[in-house]
Amino acid sequence: MAKQYISMRNLRFLLFDVFNGLELTKLDYYKDHNQDTYDMTLDTAKQISDSLLYPLYEEMDHKKPKYEDGTIKVHPKVREIMETFGEGGWINAPKEFEKGGQQMPYLLFNLSAMVFHAANTAAVAFPYLTAGAANLIDSFGSKELKETYLAHMWAGKWQGTMALTEPQAGSSLTDITSSATPTEHGYYKIKGQKIYISGGDHDGVDNIVHLYLAKIDGAPAGTKGISLFVVPKFRPENGGLVFNNVTTAGAYGKMGIKGAPIAHIMAGEQGDCHGYLVGEPHKGLSYMFRMMNEARIGVGQISAGLASAAYYASLQYANERPQGRPVSNKDVNLPQSLIINHADVKRMLLLQKAVVEGSIALIAQCSLWADIAERTTGEEAENAHLLLELLTPICKSYPAEMGMLSISNGLQVLGGAGFCDDFPLQQHYRDTRINPIYEGTTAIHGMDLLGRKVPMKGGKAVMIFNALVNETILEAQSFDSTKPYADKLAKTQEKLVQITMHLLNVAQTETPEVFLRDATLYLEYFGHFTISWLWLKMSVASAKALAENPQGEEKNFHTSKLHTLRYYFEYELPKTKGIHERLMSADQLTLEVAAEEIV
Amino acid sequence: MAKQYISMRNLRFLLFDVFNGLELTKLDYYKDHNQDTYDMTLDTAKQISDSLLYPLYEEMDHKKPKYEDGTIKVHPKVREIMETFGEGGWINAPKEFEKGGQQMPYLLFNLSAMVFHAANTAAVAFPYLTAGAANLIDSFGSKELKETYLAHMWAGKWQGTMALTEPQAGSSLTDITSSATPTEHGYYKIKGQKIYISGGDHDGVDNIVHLYLAKIDGAPAGTKGISLFVVPKFRPENGGLVFNNVTTAGAYGKMGIKGAPIAHIMAGEQGDCHGYLVGEPHKGLSYMFRMMNEARIGVGQISAGLASAAYYASLQYANERPQGRPVSNKDVNLPQSLIINHADVKRMLLLQKAVVEGSIALIAQCSLWADIAERTTGEEAENAHLLLELLTPICKSYPAEMGMLSISNGLQVLGGAGFCDDFPLQQHYRDTRINPIYEGTTAIHGMDLLGRKVPMKGGKAVMIFNALVNETILEAQSFDSTKPYADKLAKTQEKLVQITMHLLNVAQTETPEVFLRDATLYLEYFGHFTISWLWLKMSVASAKALAENPQGEEKNFHTSKLHTLRYYFEYELPKTKGIHERLMSADQLTLEVAAEEIV
Repeated sequence: MAKQYISMRNLRFLLFDVFNGLELTKLDYYKDHNQDTYDMTLDTAKQISDSLLYPLYEEMDHKKPKYEDGTIKVHPKVREIMETFGEGGWINAPKEFEKGGQQMPYLLFNLSAMVFHAANTAAVAFPYLTAGAANLIDSFGSKELKETYLAHMWAGKWQGTMALTEPQAGSSLTDITSSATPTEHGYYKIKGQKIYISGGDHDGVDNIVHLYLAKIDGAPAGTKGISLFVVPKFRPENGGLVFNNVTTAGAYGKMGIKGAPIAHIMAGEQGDCHGYLVGEPHKGLSYMFRMMNEARIGVGQISAGLASAAYYASLQYANERPQGRPVSNKDVNLPQSLIINHADVKRMLLLQKAVVEGSIALIAQCSLWADIAERTTGEEAENAHLLLELLTPICKSYPAEMGMLSISNGLQVLGGAGFCDDFPLQQHYRDTRINPIYEGTTAIHGMDLLGRKVPMKGGKAVMIFNALVNETILEAQSFDSTKPYADKLAKTQEKLVQITMHLLNVAQTETPEVFLRDATLYLEYFGHFTISWLWLKMSVASAKALAENPQGEEKNFHTSKLHTLRYYFEYELPKTKGIHERLMSADQLTLEVAAEEIV
Repeated sequence: MAKQYISMRNLRFLLFDVFNGLELTKLDYYKDHNQDTYDMTLDTAKQISDSLLYPLYEEMDHKKPKYEDGTIKVHPKVREIMETFGEGGWINAPKEFEKGGQQMPYLLFNLSAMVFHAANTAAVAFPYLTAGAANLIDSFGSKELKETYLAHMWAGKWQGTMALTEPQAGSSLTDITSSATPTEHGYYKIKGQKIYISGGDHDGVDNIVHLYLAKIDGAPAGTKGISLFVVPKFRPENGGLVFNNVTTAGAYGKMGIKGAPIAHIMAGEQGDCHGYLVGEPHKGLSYMFRMMNEARIGVGQISAGLASAAYYASLQYANERPQGRPVSNKDVNLPQSLIINHADVKRMLLLQKAVVEGSIALIAQCSLWADIAERTTGEEAENAHLLLELLTPICKSYPAEMGMLSISNGLQVLGGAGFCDDFPLQQHYRDTRINPIYEGTTAIHGMDLLGRKVPMKGGKAVMIFNALVNETILEAQSFDSTKPYADKLAKTQEKLVQITMHLLNVAQTETPEVFLRDATLYLEYFGHFTISWLWLKMSVASAKALAENPQGEEKNFHTSKLHTLRYYFEYELPKTKGIHERLMSADQLTLEVAAEEIV
């Protein structure tokens, strides 16, 4: 097994140097935090990962969950994992002290989560899903719901889920048919089926709490008629737990993330199933989207975590495996060269590093905006909220899409060994393939970005974002090592503005279909632009550090950042040229071709 | 299970319309062939695939081989598959009649093989590996070796393998250490280990015949000291078979192609192991490369076959699955739309089709050149040979690399269902990941193309190739539907010439490292150029067919070709712009960055 799966040095660099995370402790909500609490949090995350999570990464893949006696039996360590996260306060760390939370900044919370995801993302799916579901109850649930559910969920004793998808609806939530019939007792009778529900049923907890979308009888058609319910597997009654007729038809066999089952669940098909309304009727989707937005950042974290583990596994291999010789000196009497010395292996490793650390930087940036949006007021909060809204589709999709490429390159570094079970790369490769699908496919995020986020408030978010990028460009222009890339980023920015103006003009003059037909490519362009900016931002911090003339590992750490900046601008950013050509083209192929003409 | 895995209509289109395969029957060697034998061959391939191969595709993945009692037990149907291929003459079809062959053109042989690979590539790994190994014995072996081995191999009773890779050497064959000690009896005593040997040991045949690279005691260092041996698992002696001390340490667990085991084998570690020299001492590598070049076309076929099966599975899903509504009319009272009507789904399907049919066209083109190179003489043969040499790295790597992207898009079309075992997409995705690795990684093919094939004979192959492309451009300029793309291809050709001249100039003035540092990207550019050309070539044939005003399915077939041409030039070819920028850049990042600076 590889020795490293994440760089703690890099997390600290982002937390302290790039994003000045200690500034947050000036805010009232975070005033009890300081350098020590930050360090201790990261250290504890690493210690839990080293001792509990990482050693189970491959084992949870091999010993996958089994459906037995009407329930899904997961790895026996899942219970310990949930309890560890509950007892350590990891499920509700950002919450108020009086709720048992730690008032932890999202920045710190999410960077710590990066350690866990890199170590074993299937293992921590259980507590993080629970955190998301509990947040919904905490934000929108009644006092009674909070009192009944939150303590158990935050303690890691009860599992939380998001129960959205139905067999006939998939991404189209408009078409869900799960029904909720009011009763005189206050609860609703729930009936319906949900598919692909992560953590939807398992024996590593005492109860499962579904945050369940359904339509109240007579509700308006479409998304305006969707309500949110708490639907537990066992409902608390008279101090005990009563089976609530939520059954599972078993876990889906799947290619990856095998340790964390996804279940087909059936509510109320074999008896009374009680559901408890969260918030107001018909507003379920807006509540759910609160959780969904967190979950989308979460998918970025899962993707970046897997890509991180794959990067260090292939880096280690490249530094240990001798094979072949330099192309200019093939003297067979020389010993073989380590493969890290081959140019193309370096290219693949730099690609991985660029994606991994670029993605983690984006997650950190979004987390910081979440802190500012939630813990400040006025224009500062509003701007942070807009930026977070704008970049959420990127934060979900860039790590997911580019993470696949990154891990594939990591596997390629190992050659035949990468395809075989003796190394974890094949598992990283399988595990990560779900990321561009769940919590909204890449195509959906493209439409979200171009169709909603860019035009919102007259393009205000894009304008604020561009101003922020300009600040970085200006700063980067004052260092020799970063100046050439600052200039390149400015040019890419011009092109992105040109494309955006062009497409917004299309939106004015043509149908929404024409406007949005290549939204996926627009998302890809925007992603490369965003990550280029973050590499420049990180490189400014490294250029400053190098000006202090550090030695040894510190010097290599910052030099490596500058090399990777160069990699990004030499090898990745040029990809935007072709996308630019396509996005500016008038050809409407995908609208004009008829279904029967694709054979 | 999906109903379709390959388009027979497309294979016939390539065979008869695009590559005029019946012209080959004017050659003496192929004179017994005609329209009927061509049709019958394709029909038989489809019939075997439908009845025997395709129904086992998923089952061979689930019931993977097991190591028991010192041998690898494969799916019980493997024996029937080998016998079917032996009895049907599929293993030696291109051979002379007097050898029991059918004098079948490679064009027909390889297009038929596409059907098998699309149906179940793991299943046909057994006979096709055997065909390659038998070819080597037939081409370079002694009369005695031929008499002893060929009949059994061609009958599908004995498995053939390529035993090259060793634990310490990988792609660096220079460093193999398997030894061959001469004896007074004529045979050699073999000692050594080989890893990742496909079909290296299994119970679906009566014997395993390794074509085994080893060094004769005292041989020169490096590749000039490598000899080729026949090393059977059981050696024929006195009319019987005697165990030859070739043992297996078991099969590797791997992510895909699970039905076809790869073995770690040990020769002569537990007793006498006899090896029989093939051809002359120290010339083993040149013989092996004959087989290797065929195997590289074979990897193209495996890749294209998997991508083909994935394409039709996702196309079927897209035509059956209702979900969501048009972006300009989201009226929830309307029934849901089939997902094939969403623009981004069409884009993904066209991407798949572009890669699948472009790759199959390239395989057909290379096969035709193999026919001309082998069955004609003089300049025609020499030119065909040069073209085949030039494009072999593309034929191996483009389907392998783009096949991964194609299948990934196919999986994405299915969303969550694509990740789950209920659909074959996840298996296609796992199976295809080996293709950019075996028979030379993509990086090795990049160096082969730029470092060897392009400069060979003063660039003669490239010049002939460009002349061929110009012919297609000229022809395409006479149809309205293809003219715009002919012009675009001409511009891309200019850029490729510019890049090539630039790099050859670098080769003159700088080290080989500088010259070859981005050979992988050069390969990628060359691949897009080649496939664009083939799409133009196919589209000319379809434009001609459409001029005859066909109706119904025929009309859709040809219209679909023209749409996909348009797809390629709108969405894929623009990718060359970014690669051009990188290949023209003077930055030598991957040479300048030190190993310790990648952290």
